[in-house]
Amino acid sequence: MIPHCHDKRIEALRAEVKARGGDAFISLNPADNAWLTGFFGSTSLVVLSADDVRLFCDFRYTEQAKQQVRSAQVVEFSGSAEKFLAEQLNESRLMHALFDSHAMTVAQYDAIKKQYTGSLKGESLICGKLRQIKEESEIARIEAASQLAEDALSEVLETIRPGMEEVELAARIDYAFRMRGAQGSSFETIALFGEHSSLPHGKPGRRPLQSGDIVLIDCGCILDGYCSDLTRTFAFDRIPGHWFQEIYDCVQEAQALALAAVAEGVSTLEVDQKARDHIAAAGYGDFFGHGTGHGVGLEIHEQPRLSPQSEAMLAANMVVTVEPGIYLPEQGGVRIEDLLVVTPSGSRVLTALPKDLRIL
Amino acid sequence: MIPHCHDKRIEALRAEVKARGGDAFISLNPADNAWLTGFFGSTSLVVLSADDVRLFCDFRYTEQAKQQVRSAQVVEFSGSAEKFLAEQLNESRLMHALFDSHAMTVAQYDAIKKQYTGSLKGESLICGKLRQIKEESEIARIEAASQLAEDALSEVLETIRPGMEEVELAARIDYAFRMRGAQGSSFETIALFGEHSSLPHGKPGRRPLQSGDIVLIDCGCILDGYCSDLTRTFAFDRIPGHWFQEIYDCVQEAQALALAAVAEGVSTLEVDQKARDHIAAAGYGDFFGHGTGHGVGLEIHEQPRLSPQSEAMLAANMVVTVEPGIYLPEQGGVRIEDLLVVTPSGSRVLTALPKDLRIL
Repeated sequence: MIPHCHDKRIEALRAEVKARGGDAFISLNPADNAWLTGFFGSTSLVVLSADDVRLFCDFRYTEQAKQQVRSAQVVEFSGSAEKFLAEQLNESRLMHALFDSHAMTVAQYDAIKKQYTGSLKGESLICGKLRQIKEESEIARIEAASQLAEDALSEVLETIRPGMEEVELAARIDYAFRMRGAQGSSFETIALFGEHSSLPHGKPGRRPLQSGDIVLIDCGCILDGYCSDLTRTFAFDRIPGHWFQEIYDCVQEAQALALAAVAEGVSTLEVDQKARDHIAAAGYGDFFGHGTGHGVGLEIHEQPRLSPQSEAMLAANMVVTVEPGIYLPEQGGVRIEDLLVVTPSGSRVLTALPKDLRIL
Repeated sequence: MIPHCHDKRIEALRAEVKARGGDAFISLNPADNAWLTGFFGSTSLVVLSADDVRLFCDFRYTEQAKQQVRSAQVVEFSGSAEKFLAEQLNESRLMHALFDSHAMTVAQYDAIKKQYTGSLKGESLICGKLRQIKEESEIARIEAASQLAEDALSEVLETIRPGMEEVELAARIDYAFRMRGAQGSSFETIALFGEHSSLPHGKPGRRPLQSGDIVLIDCGCILDGYCSDLTRTFAFDRIPGHWFQEIYDCVQEAQALALAAVAEGVSTLEVDQKARDHIAAAGYGDFFGHGTGHGVGLEIHEQPRLSPQSEAMLAANMVVTVEPGIYLPEQGGVRIEDLLVVTPSGSRVLTALPKDLRIL
């Protein structure tokens, strides 16, 4: 049985490629390739033309590809992928190849160019833009991943105790994801205590948990190929101080405002601005330096981005995060993040964990 | 205190850049940047010139960078990294910028080009080639990572039992790494049972362990920023069959032959050939499709590569793997992998786990 979804996706990509004057598309992004063919190997190369779809992979992945892929022809190669690709394009007389300029390195481009006699033109995220709008089956998978991550996190939070190190908490979360059936974590789990929480992308270290610590956890899992993303900030044993309650409330309000702004037809910039303006009005504008959210799907960071630089428009069935934060250097930070599906009239929030300040 | 190692590395890179006619080097590879500056954030951008070294990072990483970096000036930016970079190069009158063509996407190249008034030239792995030769302190870290991974694996193997799923075994290994102080796994842990072991880069699934199964484990951890890499293949409860003993012996012999060939001044191709010829002579040539090994350091896959395509020469203080395998589709596979330091007269093997066939 050929999964219908891949055929539909392939047709959508073909239309985009044709509209841009290409007769072939070279796809190097593993997530794009998974979306197009169902192949989940970490290295792959897909060439799509009007006539066929070919997945090139090396020896290590051939057997796996033959098991997973129905919508593309699996072709094994050895040696230089770029040389093989160029030869295949030449032989098939595909003379106007497009590619995603975010997914090809300059070295790969140069190596293909060396052998390929056609024109090679970079485009920005053709597949990535198609992937923004999720099918119902994709939303169901993201929702399942989100539910799994919440359940795992809730389970692990029951085991938290004074003296536990950040790395142990992170390791327990990752372990719980896997034991509940996740393929793994969708990114390196962030578990930060006390003043460490002021590092928006800090790495868990050996800091032991103490009474009055902030506990900031940002985590997600991969289930059936799809990612989830979730952040909650807690206090351990007691509230660290009035300043913490103040930034917590401010972030919670900002998150609610941004979330309420989400709907089909609203600009991503506007959603970002809702959170950003509220935080700035409270005097913390200098301490919220990242974007308000991002798309989630086969990759943890996808289109659209919700940031001061973004220019996209929300559409129904996009899945995005809303995650403002305030980070006071050497003091501590707060971030609250939900995952949601954009709907015509607003959004459906996939994250069920409460957001009121919880003392663990 | 400025760590001496970074100054030495910066000087070595400066000499390479100068020799290639550049007045600046744009470094986008996080591992190169960690090597040059000590910064271990997942996104970073370093610009090296004759006068200074600047690490550009966004808000999320500034605090971390200021804590970790002594050998470079930390400059925070917001918005487009490429635009900011181009402006900085223009303002500093750096007109001949080199970059690693493997670490820059075509989209990044185009975005820099749009603003940068100088010449932008790709070079292959300048930093990556310098990083091949490890300092004593780096070897010590890799050895510590290797030891940690072995200890963790040995501990987890004690818990193996019928019915355990591949994902559980992998999750237990990852958890053991972290609980022993590793920052994480150096790649997605491979734990494959029975016929699954014929997928050289298979993903652990829900297959439960049975008597007579092959157990193939390929894993490594990150400690102090440095990676380890280790593969062992076992039988569970009993040997799966004569065919398994035969391919096991063949791989073990091939691994020993390749390992014995390693020494300063020997070509990487020759080492690969030792393993490959032995496997081919036994009639399994079609079932060993990957390279014999690769460099290991800040990244799990570094220069040099030991493969039929490689053209490098081994030098003292390179750290490489030797890991031949035989994979019989739908039957099962064997891979045996050690990590070793190249020495003037041979090698020093860092992996201590026995390699004779062990029945778990």
